[in-house]
Amino acid sequence: MKKPLATVVISSFIFAALSGLSIAAENKEPIEPIKAAKPANPALAELGKKLYFDPRLSKSGFISCNSCHNLSMGGTDNIKTSIGHNWTQGPINAPTVLNSSLNLAQFWDGRAADLKAQAGGPIANPGEMAFTHELAVDVLQSIPGYVAEFRKTFGKEKISIEEVTLAIAAFEETLVTPNSRFDKWLKGDKKALTTTELAGYNLFKSSGCIACHNGPAVGGNSFQKMGLVEPYKANSPAEGRSAVTGKDSDRFNFKVPTLRNVELTYPYFHDGEAATLTDAVDTMGRLQLGKKFTADENAKIVAFLKTLTGDQPSFKLPQLPPSSDKTPRPQPFGK
Amino acid sequence: MKKPLATVVISSFIFAALSGLSIAAENKEPIEPIKAAKPANPALAELGKKLYFDPRLSKSGFISCNSCHNLSMGGTDNIKTSIGHNWTQGPINAPTVLNSSLNLAQFWDGRAADLKAQAGGPIANPGEMAFTHELAVDVLQSIPGYVAEFRKTFGKEKISIEEVTLAIAAFEETLVTPNSRFDKWLKGDKKALTTTELAGYNLFKSSGCIACHNGPAVGGNSFQKMGLVEPYKANSPAEGRSAVTGKDSDRFNFKVPTLRNVELTYPYFHDGEAATLTDAVDTMGRLQLGKKFTADENAKIVAFLKTLTGDQPSFKLPQLPPSSDKTPRPQPFGK
Repeated sequence: MKKPLATVVISSFIFAALSGLSIAAENKEPIEPIKAAKPANPALAELGKKLYFDPRLSKSGFISCNSCHNLSMGGTDNIKTSIGHNWTQGPINAPTVLNSSLNLAQFWDGRAADLKAQAGGPIANPGEMAFTHELAVDVLQSIPGYVAEFRKTFGKEKISIEEVTLAIAAFEETLVTPNSRFDKWLKGDKKALTTTELAGYNLFKSSGCIACHNGPAVGGNSFQKMGLVEPYKANSPAEGRSAVTGKDSDRFNFKVPTLRNVELTYPYFHDGEAATLTDAVDTMGRLQLGKKFTADENAKIVAFLKTLTGDQPSFKLPQLPPSSDKTPRPQPFGK
Repeated sequence: MKKPLATVVISSFIFAALSGLSIAAENKEPIEPIKAAKPANPALAELGKKLYFDPRLSKSGFISCNSCHNLSMGGTDNIKTSIGHNWTQGPINAPTVLNSSLNLAQFWDGRAADLKAQAGGPIANPGEMAFTHELAVDVLQSIPGYVAEFRKTFGKEKISIEEVTLAIAAFEETLVTPNSRFDKWLKGDKKALTTTELAGYNLFKSSGCIACHNGPAVGGNSFQKMGLVEPYKANSPAEGRSAVTGKDSDRFNFKVPTLRNVELTYPYFHDGEAATLTDAVDTMGRLQLGKKFTADENAKIVAFLKTLTGDQPSFKLPQLPPSSDKTPRPQPFGK
């Protein structure tokens, strides 16, 4: 049936007005959509991708960034606390690398100011990749494929750890996850969420979760005390932020983790002690908000949280340039 | 300038005749080009790709097929002998998975008849992935994304290790590496090799390397004694084929490894003791052929071997379906 022109014009006007409303609604929400990555220097990010997947940055030749921040599994290892060199049990849960560029600082205790500062940490940590920056650079400098790529990217022959971590950080900045169902909803697609999921979001806001989990990353933008209302009974010796500031008042202050892709980043908390989202929501409610969520409330919040899964990294498995005869060989065993 | 029709016809005839010649020449070479993969069941291979990258097939949740047969690094780990569960030092060098579908049998001692039989081995090996087939299947059966994919592929709800290994094998069959420069030369592109590389190939044939390293995989099609002319002095306790046949005459008989992509699959031999191609060619010459190659001969053979690097696997990093609340959690530490 053909509509008279006036009706079409009015309909369009109403539609535009509603769209305007929906934008206004979006602006009022305490969570913002994730923006797609726009790498300033794609060649740098490509080099960083290779380095991220290269186990030759570890003493053993076996552990790469991707070992514990696995991009097939939400940028985590899905283990309570990670496995490092010589099967060392890590002291803390590996946080997701996805959307980590949105964090106010890196590591659970925020001891690295940014991704570049973070990237050097695990390489030289004796319980993680167990190498040194000097030895890692020696390895790269002995690989003609890398030398050529660093030359092209930085215009010089000599590689330093500065360029290595800069490239890894540039790659990590591409690891954002836009287009979650929640973001579609935020942008005005009201059908993107079910009524249960929306009820979960409203509970998430009205119960106070949103006080810490807000912004584009739904967290990552503040340090907060774990065990605000009720103390957290942990076996983990990690005390968080106080290790950085030296202040007693910072004990058990941890960076609030992002809830983006939280469906994929189990287990939860700095010690990985919460195996499921249900557990995590229950514990957070009691310890941080003094609230015992009913099973129905918990399920609604969990349903909402699962709408935060966005587009996962999508790229070809990188091919690493081969070692040369001069490349120092990995030392997985022995001292 | 337009040619008269007769000239065109004659030229075409000569061209066809020359092509025929080049095919004839190709047929005379003892190495055949690698053929591109044509998966009979692409959905099965896709499922297998996920399983190949999934560390949840290991007890620790940390080790996948790709950990030791890394598709970013020539389908190997580039370590002398691999690292397994609890940092166990493996007894043998991880052979490349690339072109492994062309092998007469799997493992250095050929104890698995085919890729499907091989795929179950590391999962249940206490020094590798340290799991059991039953527990691995329990994990998969608890993951809704896998259950749906197995249902779609096999038309049933219940997963068994048979389907798991069948899928992994189907993926591995896609991991062939056509289009090496040597294959281009075989197919008639005489400019694909330099004169040095061609001289290396001729030496490879005239010296007798070709006796064992022939066929499309340039090896992989027979068992041979390591130390034929001069005994191999090894620290490795591996004795090869005799462990399978129980025959004393099979001691130190190993599957001849493929030389495809050998530039990427260092270090060499079943014990990984040859760090470089130069070392490997020197040792093979002395021990198998009673020949001491000159530095110039060695360099020529190495130059030829580097022309065997073909197209590496090219696909998107797979995204793994997340565990459910019911999925048994990995047990990386403790007994």
